[in-house]
Amino acid sequence: MRRLALAAALAAGLVTSAHAVEGMWQPAQLPKIASTLKQHGLKLDPATLTDLTAYPMGAIVSLGGCTASFVSPDGLVVTNHHCGYGALQYNSTPQKNLIERGFLAKTVAEELPGSPDMRVFVTEEIRDVTKEVTAKLTPDMGALARYKAIDLAKKELVKGCETDGYRCDVYTFHGGFSYQLIKQLEIKDVRLVYAPPESIGKFGGDVDNWMWPRHTGDFSYLRAYVSKDGKSATYSKDNVPYHPKHVLKVNPQGVEEGDYVMVVGYPGRTNRYRLADEAKAAIDWQYPTQIKIYQDTLDIIAANGKTNPDVTVKYAGMVAGLNNYLKNFGGQLEGLRRANAVAVKQKQEADLDAWLKKQGGADNKALIADIATLKTKLASYQSTRERDLDLMLLSRSSMFSSGVRLARLANERTKPDMERETGYQQRDEVRIEGALKQMERRYDAKTDQQLMTYALVRYAKLPKEQRLPAIDAWLAGANTDAAIATKVSALYAGSKLGNTEDRMKYFKADAKTIAASDDSMLKLATAVLPELKKIEDEQDAREGELAKLRPRYMQAMIAWKDSQNLPVYPDANSSLRVTFGNVQGVAPRDGVGYAPFTTAEGIVEKDTGVEPFNAPKAETDAIRAKAFDGYASKKLGTLPVDFLADLDITGGNSGSPSLDAEGRLVGLAFDGNWESVSGDWLFNPKLNRSIQVDVRYMLWVMHHLDHADNLLKEMGVPAK
Amino acid sequence: MRRLALAAALAAGLVTSAHAVEGMWQPAQLPKIASTLKQHGLKLDPATLTDLTAYPMGAIVSLGGCTASFVSPDGLVVTNHHCGYGALQYNSTPQKNLIERGFLAKTVAEELPGSPDMRVFVTEEIRDVTKEVTAKLTPDMGALARYKAIDLAKKELVKGCETDGYRCDVYTFHGGFSYQLIKQLEIKDVRLVYAPPESIGKFGGDVDNWMWPRHTGDFSYLRAYVSKDGKSATYSKDNVPYHPKHVLKVNPQGVEEGDYVMVVGYPGRTNRYRLADEAKAAIDWQYPTQIKIYQDTLDIIAANGKTNPDVTVKYAGMVAGLNNYLKNFGGQLEGLRRANAVAVKQKQEADLDAWLKKQGGADNKALIADIATLKTKLASYQSTRERDLDLMLLSRSSMFSSGVRLARLANERTKPDMERETGYQQRDEVRIEGALKQMERRYDAKTDQQLMTYALVRYAKLPKEQRLPAIDAWLAGANTDAAIATKVSALYAGSKLGNTEDRMKYFKADAKTIAASDDSMLKLATAVLPELKKIEDEQDAREGELAKLRPRYMQAMIAWKDSQNLPVYPDANSSLRVTFGNVQGVAPRDGVGYAPFTTAEGIVEKDTGVEPFNAPKAETDAIRAKAFDGYASKKLGTLPVDFLADLDITGGNSGSPSLDAEGRLVGLAFDGNWESVSGDWLFNPKLNRSIQVDVRYMLWVMHHLDHADNLLKEMGVPAK
Repeated sequence: MRRLALAAALAAGLVTSAHAVEGMWQPAQLPKIASTLKQHGLKLDPATLTDLTAYPMGAIVSLGGCTASFVSPDGLVVTNHHCGYGALQYNSTPQKNLIERGFLAKTVAEELPGSPDMRVFVTEEIRDVTKEVTAKLTPDMGALARYKAIDLAKKELVKGCETDGYRCDVYTFHGGFSYQLIKQLEIKDVRLVYAPPESIGKFGGDVDNWMWPRHTGDFSYLRAYVSKDGKSATYSKDNVPYHPKHVLKVNPQGVEEGDYVMVVGYPGRTNRYRLADEAKAAIDWQYPTQIKIYQDTLDIIAANGKTNPDVTVKYAGMVAGLNNYLKNFGGQLEGLRRANAVAVKQKQEADLDAWLKKQGGADNKALIADIATLKTKLASYQSTRERDLDLMLLSRSSMFSSGVRLARLANERTKPDMERETGYQQRDEVRIEGALKQMERRYDAKTDQQLMTYALVRYAKLPKEQRLPAIDAWLAGANTDAAIATKVSALYAGSKLGNTEDRMKYFKADAKTIAASDDSMLKLATAVLPELKKIEDEQDAREGELAKLRPRYMQAMIAWKDSQNLPVYPDANSSLRVTFGNVQGVAPRDGVGYAPFTTAEGIVEKDTGVEPFNAPKAETDAIRAKAFDGYASKKLGTLPVDFLADLDITGGNSGSPSLDAEGRLVGLAFDGNWESVSGDWLFNPKLNRSIQVDVRYMLWVMHHLDHADNLLKEMGVPAK
Repeated sequence: MRRLALAAALAAGLVTSAHAVEGMWQPAQLPKIASTLKQHGLKLDPATLTDLTAYPMGAIVSLGGCTASFVSPDGLVVTNHHCGYGALQYNSTPQKNLIERGFLAKTVAEELPGSPDMRVFVTEEIRDVTKEVTAKLTPDMGALARYKAIDLAKKELVKGCETDGYRCDVYTFHGGFSYQLIKQLEIKDVRLVYAPPESIGKFGGDVDNWMWPRHTGDFSYLRAYVSKDGKSATYSKDNVPYHPKHVLKVNPQGVEEGDYVMVVGYPGRTNRYRLADEAKAAIDWQYPTQIKIYQDTLDIIAANGKTNPDVTVKYAGMVAGLNNYLKNFGGQLEGLRRANAVAVKQKQEADLDAWLKKQGGADNKALIADIATLKTKLASYQSTRERDLDLMLLSRSSMFSSGVRLARLANERTKPDMERETGYQQRDEVRIEGALKQMERRYDAKTDQQLMTYALVRYAKLPKEQRLPAIDAWLAGANTDAAIATKVSALYAGSKLGNTEDRMKYFKADAKTIAASDDSMLKLATAVLPELKKIEDEQDAREGELAKLRPRYMQAMIAWKDSQNLPVYPDANSSLRVTFGNVQGVAPRDGVGYAPFTTAEGIVEKDTGVEPFNAPKAETDAIRAKAFDGYASKKLGTLPVDFLADLDITGGNSGSPSLDAEGRLVGLAFDGNWESVSGDWLFNPKLNRSIQVDVRYMLWVMHHLDHADNLLKEMGVPAK
């Protein structure tokens, strides 16, 4: 009855919606938009959100690529199921598949160590360092010099900031309009506490990914551990739970349609201030080309997987990633077309230009000129895009990329640390070692060769002036599929880098040893390295140029918006941001409406018994029996599962807490709807929606299905 | 704004829906459900709908597989675009592609002849002939004898009924519970009058097929012609427009949400009264097996099409059909699962059984026994399902099926007409001749051989007792792919049936000539024919058994329903039916609502410029400019395109007029939503919706885009 009523109501058009507010705001910006926050329903004083060491901001942490929050004074952390996935993988064996069955530590002693690369980053300090970074820049310095000066300034700031147990990074805002030094406590002992079975945590899987309606219980729990004296330390039995300064309160009543909601987290990257020409290139070339290449790559892997099941296992991660991107790119293209993105950006640029002209004056004239230069430069960079893509593809060969990485590291090691390239400093060596070691888990010689051949076949079609002499010399004229495959086959036959022991020996080797090696791949890498370095210098020079020109565009944009009394949020850059709005559905296309909440009944409806729609029988039984233990929404008359809000999120926000008007936890952001995939370029308030798992579903699953009452108690959730 | 409001309204649940009425009613049944009809909004006297020679029933005709209606006194007929497609195809050349650009005859003289097999059937008489058919049946007669007696009775009734220009058929209701002799005027000169371009008439194409939201302008116009003396006649320049007794009035205001609407037409086939075991077999075996086989067949054709474009053209029809079925079968499986169809049917059977037991008495006991026998028989038939499927597949080889058909026809011709098998009587010869001729347009030797090989490879795996000695003798032990392919290759090499001239020579040949032919395919056909005939006899015997048992089940069902004062409509059988209900949206699944109307703006939204989403520029321009010429709905504030109603339709209903409460034309049914695909087994009033093109969209396209004002005037639509 409810369902029919919903459908009938679709055309009634009786309820109007709160209008969405675009923006991934820096905490410090919030007081400037205080009235808008209040108007949408925030009850907290916006000023409290600027203090990273106060409630609630102090409870929100980064996992490096994901977001999470402290929910108990003993360092219990809640995040998405897909963010804690690595810990499940690390502890799973075919005999004891924790991914499939889920995991619950009934006591702290039962908690399992996460994989060694798992981290919890607690942001403790954000300091504007624009002046320090730009101090040594002069208007007439060369592009590469500019890049190097910025890079060095950043490295020095990092060096001066990093102390034991802390990680510091300089974040670039508005393409270089400002810089911030962010200091984070780096917790290195992160343990697995609880995850529901995959059939809940990943219910709907890749089929439902980026889609509404969702019915995924995308949550899991970790715990942060430190040494007995409270310091960051790698895993040790003797470590003790970390005691965060602040812990999110849970609101077991959740939110309802129209309620204020905000998401705090670490969004990775957006292209909101990219120019129309850049959007056009993405639509006309980048996405279509990548779609073709990714599909070809999947075909290569699939063909090998047919005869060798080992390939399927080793490349599962790459395949999942490629499929994910393929779906994403399709969504980008569809969304950019529907949003008429190029025309919208062109109009914005024309309006900005007109405003600058209207203001007049030498300064504005200079801005106009710089923006024009920016466009010319960006257009010129496109001439090498095929080459740049082919080189990226070449590095899909683990053998080739290992060879280059080894040669490069040995080379950088000959310099003082401060002069070593970013990514090849002492602080990076542990990460490089790990990656080189782990290659064995993702490497199949035949597949790897075919991927290298595929990249080289493309490479061989480049115009001569874009090709690399060292690669050409090695190819010795081979330019057909078969001839290139033969060269690659010989290359692999003459190299031992596929063997972990040999590879790790070279990790420890010095530059002279590497240069003298007769390993065919290291020889090629050594020969190619200077040319790659030259290309990298060109790219660095471009970065240097852009670091000068993009801030000029943003300066104009900020001034223009400021004249309209509109603050400008920066593009996402993995730094802490706040987005706010309201719980609401969406009309994704003509004739279709999406409700703001999905319900438990929808799980039964989707359940086929076959992965990824294989809900646990205990769950479907409980839903059929309406055994919701008081967690149901009175307004909905049933248990909510996931909900939509008009929040502005992107990758990196995964696991972010959704907070109500009083800053209490009411859910976790884990995805966006299909229409929001292209939101990275252009946020459409009519269509873009974030998807959250509802706290009531989380609590019900924990209590009713998984009996994780120990955690509910620890989080201070009243017993049922 | 309207869209956001729609979405927000989704969860409000403010409007409740009229509850749907399942049923494809025979016109004569309508007075029995008069109060329900009135309750849903019918303003006409239901009794008027029982008179096939009165308004509006007299205006509704069959095209044989589609439905249409007369909309002018000069024989103008409106139907779906996909129902008039044959006429467009017949008149199209690569140079003058009417399918793509559409067609409009501005005068009667410009109208184009349809393909020779196009027909308009005007039902003039329906007579119950149950007694005549069953007169010679005795309870203890053998199954095959029963089948033959029924078959002969039908043929005699047809012979006694058919006069020049009329076609008669005996239709079976409730599996043999009753029979009706239906007499139809067969109009053979059907001309193409008007069709919008494919980019309107087939907008959305196969992608949108069986989906909501739809934005298809699925309509076209034909005209019925007869000889100067008003009789049915094949095409002649001298023919004149037919003057129907009744003509549908058009309501240019259309209908709005909640309004009464009914569809009158010729639904082809449903399985509503099939038993739970039959549904289970469809789910467990039939659909999955056919999905695999159809996919394999598509793969064979695609592989050949890659090297030979001719194959792609010749098999386009088969490929479209197979893809259509594949999508359909997927929908059937999904729908049957979601509806829990087996359990629902099992419960119904158990309830019926309980009711019969409760009634008691010898008659009911006999019914219970007969239903049990029916189930046993049905189960036993499954033992040969693989063989029956393989033989069907074998006939995908045009060479093999032509050979068998020629041998069979020659054989049947030796008998008196009344004794000839149904389908091989004198009246069928024109159709057989056409099919044999047209083989050249759908035949590629290599593909045909591979299809035959594919079928035989499956056949070779049958248990020995199910195999055909003549085929086995010819195969001579070949049972591997390669060995069978070799046999098939030799078979084709020794036959001239691939040559149209030779094939048609054999069409005229007598049995002796065929039997004596040294054509390898005719030799095989001649050898196989008696064995196929034996299998056909077995199948006829099953039909005879079922003709006895299914009516018993239906007799029990009707008595049971009657005890609840519920009339029982028969399964669809291509006879004239009425379904009624209301315009309404649907909630297809948790979190999603579909509005009852799509709007013109949705066309612009879907438009990509690429087929099948390539709306004419004139159309998107007009929509952007909101140039709706007064055809827009005041309630919607824009032009409706397609609409949903809870009507009970299936294949064959295509082109059926949707009539308002006063019997005026307000649209044409052309599809159902995805959830209704499985409605053939089980109608779900919550989920099943028919899709109609809205009369306002039809009139607007005709007036604004195609300037078909001559037709609007002829239909009596007020000028704009």
